[in-house]
Amino acid sequence: MKKVIVSIALRESILDPQGVAVKGGLQQLGFTGVESVRIGKQIELLVETETTEAMIHEMCQKLLVNTVMEDYQITIEEVTPA
Amino acid sequence: MKKVIVSIALRESILDPQGVAVKGGLQQLGFTGVESVRIGKQIELLVETETTEAMIHEMCQKLLVNTVMEDYQITIEEVTPA
Repeated sequence: MKKVIVSIALRESILDPQGVAVKGGLQQLGFTGVESVRIGKQIELLVETETTEAMIHEMCQKLLVNTVMEDYQITIEEVTPA
Repeated sequence: MKKVIVSIALRESILDPQGVAVKGGLQQLGFTGVESVRIGKQIELLVETETTEAMIHEMCQKLLVNTVMEDYQITIEEVTPA
């Protein structure tokens, strides 16, 4: 088994209204040192050991990520069965 | 400036219907080696250098994370101004 973490973030050039709202909320709570907040997704997949990195990229491009608006990063770790 | 990544995931014991749906979608696309999918959030904060880790934990517990249903991890990196 492999554990794959796909971190998905909105591209820098795209406005993140949810992040702006959270920043406002933090400032209202008194956390005035917050400069910016951006909210993304993190998808954790458990896949068979034969799954290649190329297959993970294919999954991202076909289903998991909106590549027009989002960037993604992949982290793969081997998982030893407990 | 510090860049803080807060990774938020549903607790293991809590069902993730969105993840189950994505797993179904991947399998329909022919990715049959996918064992499980869980979907979480990743919040990227840019904060002033004086912000302590304790303050970040307070932000998480007061606003960013639903600690009843979710677990979170914090990663802090110093950012050198460009």
